[in-house]
Amino acid sequence: MKINQVGLFGKFNDNSVADAVTEVRSVLEQNQIRVLLGSTTSMDIPGERIDTQSRPLSELIDIAIVVGGDGTMLNAARNLAEHDVPTVGVNLGRLGFLTDIALQDFASGMDSILLGSYHLEPRTMLQTTVMLGEEQVFSGISLNDTVVSKGNTGRLIEFEIRADGQFVSHPRSDGIIVATPTGSTAYSLSAGGPIIYPNLPVLSMAPICPHTLSNRPIILGEETEIELSKLKVAETHANVALDGLISFQLDGSETVLIRKAAKKLLMIRMNHHNHFETLQSKLGWNG
Amino acid sequence: MKINQVGLFGKFNDNSVADAVTEVRSVLEQNQIRVLLGSTTSMDIPGERIDTQSRPLSELIDIAIVVGGDGTMLNAARNLAEHDVPTVGVNLGRLGFLTDIALQDFASGMDSILLGSYHLEPRTMLQTTVMLGEEQVFSGISLNDTVVSKGNTGRLIEFEIRADGQFVSHPRSDGIIVATPTGSTAYSLSAGGPIIYPNLPVLSMAPICPHTLSNRPIILGEETEIELSKLKVAETHANVALDGLISFQLDGSETVLIRKAAKKLLMIRMNHHNHFETLQSKLGWNG
Amino acid sequence: MKINQVGLFGKFNDNSVADAVTEVRSVLEQNQIRVLLGSTTSMDIPGERIDTQSRPLSELIDIAIVVGGDGTMLNAARNLAEHDVPTVGVNLGRLGFLTDIALQDFASGMDSILLGSYHLEPRTMLQTTVMLGEEQVFSGISLNDTVVSKGNTGRLIEFEIRADGQFVSHPRSDGIIVATPTGSTAYSLSAGGPIIYPNLPVLSMAPICPHTLSNRPIILGEETEIELSKLKVAETHANVALDGLISFQLDGSETVLIRKAAKKLLMIRMNHHNHFETLQSKLGWNG
Amino acid sequence: MKINQVGLFGKFNDNSVADAVTEVRSVLEQNQIRVLLGSTTSMDIPGERIDTQSRPLSELIDIAIVVGGDGTMLNAARNLAEHDVPTVGVNLGRLGFLTDIALQDFASGMDSILLGSYHLEPRTMLQTTVMLGEEQVFSGISLNDTVVSKGNTGRLIEFEIRADGQFVSHPRSDGIIVATPTGSTAYSLSAGGPIIYPNLPVLSMAPICPHTLSNRPIILGEETEIELSKLKVAETHANVALDGLISFQLDGSETVLIRKAAKKLLMIRMNHHNHFETLQSKLGWNG
Repeated sequence: MKINQVGLFGKFNDNSVADAVTEVRSVLEQNQIRVLLGSTTSMDIPGERIDTQSRPLSELIDIAIVVGGDGTMLNAARNLAEHDVPTVGVNLGRLGFLTDIALQDFASGMDSILLGSYHLEPRTMLQTTVMLGEEQVFSGISLNDTVVSKGNTGRLIEFEIRADGQFVSHPRSDGIIVATPTGSTAYSLSAGGPIIYPNLPVLSMAPICPHTLSNRPIILGEETEIELSKLKVAETHANVALDGLISFQLDGSETVLIRKAAKKLLMIRMNHHNHFETLQSKLGWNG
Repeated sequence: MKINQVGLFGKFNDNSVADAVTEVRSVLEQNQIRVLLGSTTSMDIPGERIDTQSRPLSELIDIAIVVGGDGTMLNAARNLAEHDVPTVGVNLGRLGFLTDIALQDFASGMDSILLGSYHLEPRTMLQTTVMLGEEQVFSGISLNDTVVSKGNTGRLIEFEIRADGQFVSHPRSDGIIVATPTGSTAYSLSAGGPIIYPNLPVLSMAPICPHTLSNRPIILGEETEIELSKLKVAETHANVALDGLISFQLDGSETVLIRKAAKKLLMIRMNHHNHFETLQSKLGWNG
Repeated sequence: MKINQVGLFGKFNDNSVADAVTEVRSVLEQNQIRVLLGSTTSMDIPGERIDTQSRPLSELIDIAIVVGGDGTMLNAARNLAEHDVPTVGVNLGRLGFLTDIALQDFASGMDSILLGSYHLEPRTMLQTTVMLGEEQVFSGISLNDTVVSKGNTGRLIEFEIRADGQFVSHPRSDGIIVATPTGSTAYSLSAGGPIIYPNLPVLSMAPICPHTLSNRPIILGEETEIELSKLKVAETHANVALDGLISFQLDGSETVLIRKAAKKLLMIRMNHHNHFETLQSKLGWNG
Repeated sequence: MKINQVGLFGKFNDNSVADAVTEVRSVLEQNQIRVLLGSTTSMDIPGERIDTQSRPLSELIDIAIVVGGDGTMLNAARNLAEHDVPTVGVNLGRLGFLTDIALQDFASGMDSILLGSYHLEPRTMLQTTVMLGEEQVFSGISLNDTVVSKGNTGRLIEFEIRADGQFVSHPRSDGIIVATPTGSTAYSLSAGGPIIYPNLPVLSMAPICPHTLSNRPIILGEETEIELSKLKVAETHANVALDGLISFQLDGSETVLIRKAAKKLLMIRMNHHNHFETLQSKLGWNG
């Protein structure tokens, strides 16, 4: 892939990444690459903006560079995956699972990318749909996880879980986390879910503080359609959150469907990238 | 203790316990005991009501009988403990940790109580106070637990924890559960906390889905004052819930103080009562 | 598949299954099926024995019926898988994950099998090899799990874990469990591992009581070669156990290699079989 | 307390602490304190040895200084507690829960101790007794924990647990850890037990990899007598380990009794000592 144009994405409404974005842009322009800024990158950073009114994103940029933390990547990922834009994450000093190139290593990393010394690592995403009877009332994409959890209540919620139509369980809990392998090291890990190697064709489904202690995390095939229904909420609604952002409030009569999204995020990985090194560093395995 | 008058408490606004309440009342009246109905017992159940306008509860009734599940007991406990009224729980078929006498065993149980063949088991309760600067903006009592947790948000909350003024930790989590020994088998257990034998002078403090996996439950002395402050909530408020009922919404500038309440709930226990048998039955250890 | 000959396997050296074996044999013979008894089935049970001196197992029997518990199946599985013999498990009253047909349902189950109303569910097995330098000192097959754990010592053991040559971690723990999806509901579950749907192409690697609390279970692709080396044992040896049977004692200088076995166990499943129902029953999800 | 004589204890048979021991001795001798070396301190370190043939330990030394890690302290603790000798731990660079003074801080720490600027923190210990019928076949003391666990077998063990004579449970597991508050941050924590504040009058009893997932850690009063009996071991013996050292092999017919020891270890703590700081550092709570 010849890289002529790059989309540069910083944290939404955050000027603290301005210096980093400027530094990355400088490296790119020294390589005769045209740089377009993402539309949600802070407006205080000057530069040409991506305008998808005229042409689709996939024609405007060859790759995307996301500067910031994993949260910034999560926000950018949905749109980039939709348009099959290969994406690389640059962190500002604190290693991320998704933003694994340190800013100071960016110039040499970019050299490797321009030389084609990288590979694409497709990351499964989730498609979440909320149905009210026959009507679709919400639909969205997530890279890490889809969480159905109790809203503003001190009490448990209940719902029925089905996998490809088969009844799984009817837990009483604070909610449930359906995570991709990418999301297995995020919220799911805090709830007792396992670490999943990124490229595996599986999903994890972990209850949050289940009343029945044997309601343990389950690994399902990524083609499984998970259906949550017959929701009982004590006094108030429940929430559907995609990648930690609340997306929809449930009042109990809806059905939530979670399945693999049609598109995957294409992550650009240096050839020497080693997922276990990231785990060691992020999880403090080295002592 | 001579038992002449008994307060009878059923589930608030629930007529399904009417038959059971009537059955219990009948047993009591056969023993020449005057029966007064709790003011929150369903109004559809006829009978003389407790009227605390004239005289304090402790002068009106010698003991309280709570008919229903553990939730009914939690609701009744605050007021009964405040007035040092010994309390016994009667369940409707499903064994509770607090309501451990089955309805069909009530008559013989009552015989034992009238013969003095029982003991009082004091249960520690929590006093929770919310301060805004120097001003107390909320105060309440709980028997099981006080929970500070994220409100209607998909994201983590952060706060600083101090125990008797000493800095403990600053977790990022869904919240924290401070539980009495009584509450150790409720929500705290689902969050990974230990089972605590009921009479021990300790509290449990368990984070809910902590980001840092080594943020494990801690057992503290019951005299410890726990202080939560410097709350960071992502987009919205956090909640303080006492025994699963949301009691106060926090916007981040408050300090939450949790300590042992001045009064204990005096539970009436049959002499043959065995807490381990309750654990075996409720937690399915026998199969 | 036309079924003319069936191998019948009972618990090794256990006469308590004699009645069940006789009952199963009777059903089979009523269907004009020739019944051969497994060589490790108790010798007190009369009948023609399988003799693999003359011909391979796969030519002697069309399918295998294993009567007993999951332990009996684990013992029979290695040989049956090696010869691609489809296998069905019959339990004596207590549902097993592998022996899921109750004895009283066997006759109707056998009717279904004879009518072809079943499917084959291949189950991944593990091949474990112990190397001392260039020399292979042990090799064996397991259906549930391969466990490397401390031997007769009160102390932790240490070793280095590599996955396809990449360094993963160097935990201090009681040991490690590498489990197939089949084994995910056995020992691995007790050690905090997730439940894995049976047909998924993954393995689970779960540390046993790790000193570092972030050493959580990891899901790896089933093609991954796991290598354990640089073993440090405090005072004595460590053990390699396959399906709960100690197979080899390690003194520290060996390397243990665990990978997918060449063969899979072919489990015969009724068409109405539902793995979630087994989970519900075995794990007590129904209350 | 006037300190004239100090016992100095280093790691058994380990010369690597020689420099540290020499440095500590030098500080003590500058303060006109007579230094006696523990009998198990490496013999290659010159100096006067403790000789308890003539007089009891409590008359020979006023306090004990243990140089090394927590393991060294565990070994020294039994004898020191028996003779009520106040004890302080000095680490060689790596903070321990029990050895919390760094070597470079020893001189100033010793100044504080000589000025009386410290307090004694009594730590509960365990007395473990193994009975064969009426005969006592083993007895020993532990500071961290007593563990009954499977020996050299790949299979579960079973036993009956009683607390003060009451039946608790009959778990199938790898074993059980009875821990003091001191031991709550050691093996017990790896097995899912809670952190217990050091001075609390409680014990923790945590199963190791229990088959029944609801067999969770239990906090009991420190006066509780725990009895393990009716041991079933699959092929071989089980072990009783005190503080990680195997002390006795069980063949199944024994009863193991665990209760609070008569003596406590008297730990010398600087007045500024803060247990939460140790937890933060050892468990990586700060990031």
